[in-house]
Amino acid sequence: MSILVVGSVAFDDVTSPSGSVKNILGGAATYFALAASYFTDVRVVGVVGEDFGPQEEKVFHDHKIDIRGLERAKGKTFRWGGTYTDNLNEAKTDYTDLNVFQTFQPRIPKAYEDTDFLFLANIQPTLQANVRRSMNGVRLTGCDTMNYWIKGTPGELAETLKLVNVLLINDTETKMLAQETNLPRAAHKVLAMGPQALVIKHGEYGATIFFREGAFGIGRHPFRAPALPIEEVKDPTGAGDSFAGGFMGYVASQNDVNREVLKRALFYGGVMGSFAVERFGTERLQSLTREEIDARFQIFRELTHLE
Amino acid sequence: MSILVVGSVAFDDVTSPSGSVKNILGGAATYFALAASYFTDVRVVGVVGEDFGPQEEKVFHDHKIDIRGLERAKGKTFRWGGTYTDNLNEAKTDYTDLNVFQTFQPRIPKAYEDTDFLFLANIQPTLQANVRRSMNGVRLTGCDTMNYWIKGTPGELAETLKLVNVLLINDTETKMLAQETNLPRAAHKVLAMGPQALVIKHGEYGATIFFREGAFGIGRHPFRAPALPIEEVKDPTGAGDSFAGGFMGYVASQNDVNREVLKRALFYGGVMGSFAVERFGTERLQSLTREEIDARFQIFRELTHLE
Repeated sequence: MSILVVGSVAFDDVTSPSGSVKNILGGAATYFALAASYFTDVRVVGVVGEDFGPQEEKVFHDHKIDIRGLERAKGKTFRWGGTYTDNLNEAKTDYTDLNVFQTFQPRIPKAYEDTDFLFLANIQPTLQANVRRSMNGVRLTGCDTMNYWIKGTPGELAETLKLVNVLLINDTETKMLAQETNLPRAAHKVLAMGPQALVIKHGEYGATIFFREGAFGIGRHPFRAPALPIEEVKDPTGAGDSFAGGFMGYVASQNDVNREVLKRALFYGGVMGSFAVERFGTERLQSLTREEIDARFQIFRELTHLE
Repeated sequence: MSILVVGSVAFDDVTSPSGSVKNILGGAATYFALAASYFTDVRVVGVVGEDFGPQEEKVFHDHKIDIRGLERAKGKTFRWGGTYTDNLNEAKTDYTDLNVFQTFQPRIPKAYEDTDFLFLANIQPTLQANVRRSMNGVRLTGCDTMNYWIKGTPGELAETLKLVNVLLINDTETKMLAQETNLPRAAHKVLAMGPQALVIKHGEYGATIFFREGAFGIGRHPFRAPALPIEEVKDPTGAGDSFAGGFMGYVASQNDVNREVLKRALFYGGVMGSFAVERFGTERLQSLTREEIDARFQIFRELTHLE
């Protein structure tokens, strides 16, 4: 089934201990779309500038990603520069030039109105809410956010959270959103804000999914997918968006959304995140095969599997 | 089979967001011995002062822990005071009074010479090495250490590492020991220093075991045991030592030491660590049943188990 991602498309300059790249295709919607494209049909709503050309279009087209919803505006595409030092978990932002993204107003093309699944990448919460409200036919909505909105626009974010089914954020964001330092207690507070499920991404330690009582099936306990320890992390940019793309893409590829599907999706999220960081930018996500993905899924399973 | 732990027995003052306790029984050897006692026969070598009385002895005797190797010295027992604030992963040490532990020279009683398994809790590396050398009949030696020795006595520690089979340390210690910030790369450097297996404890994210090529069986990949997210962490003191007690105790309870046993041991380590932190000091470790332990083992398995 089809999935629509609404979010940023960007050009990035990235420096990490493994090297430096300039002007590479990035943005949350790009990483998400590429990761999800191995599982299902993907559509994109975003905005780019006049510097977005045939070379960039080709990356999407090669993965059969529908970019009819990618608006072309006058000016430059969103640009971000970041540096990772030894602590690869956190980027130092060198600059953020929002450019055409500054005034982004998501517009859903008519052709996208039959979309089955929706992912609201990290943009201003009221824009997320408006998109969600305009897409009443979707079966399930996933959502990301960040510290900037949690701190800056908590009221708007609270409204958005009432409209989404699965929120995907990291440990720090969960604790900040719940104003609670204990992770499982924070998770339950976040679930009380609206989502039926909360996926907390732990970076190199994997991810945990917490369910609201009765949501997607029965069971008391959360579920955790570990991640494979990776020897060479070249560029952590987009790992979280690739995780979301693997997670949502797998969910959208299944007939039913239940706990077992969401658990497998958590593993696929980790798999796609682990591929993303192996090369700079989207390079690895562009060159995968479904066989490679399933082989790593199997390794991730065996990583915690007792006989 | 029997296991001997060599390490500290102490009295602790602990303050955490959940409250404050004074003068409670603590120390690495105490946590380790209690955790391991649910799996196998445990012996202790350590030193206590004149303030260690029948009440403290009873804690060990109630768990059939052999403390004939616990030396009584003139003076006071080792005392430690620590405070945990919101970040429960790290204690602020309020004071450390080594007391009789200052001049601790481990002496192995004749009755302990037939011990099958050995655990060297965190003490000065040369003392650890001397104990190991005096116990040539042991089948497997586990070892802990800390930043203080990694930085302060790297040469002595290097000698000790050549003599141990399994090293159990945390992420920060692994990276510091290997002088390498990437965890799997750091793990392989540590394995090259001597141990056949390295257990890295990730706190609330569980633990990973890395194997030296060909050690304990075949296979390329490390193994990870997740931990259950715990809603109420009252007192993290001794979590790592309880982990080690569960891990080593389970290993000592098995006929053979192979990868499958070590994988299960990793889960039992996490189980015992998770119990330890639920109450102040050793309270929870004193009151467990094997049924409770195995029930949590099952929950930990299911936490990452796909159908």
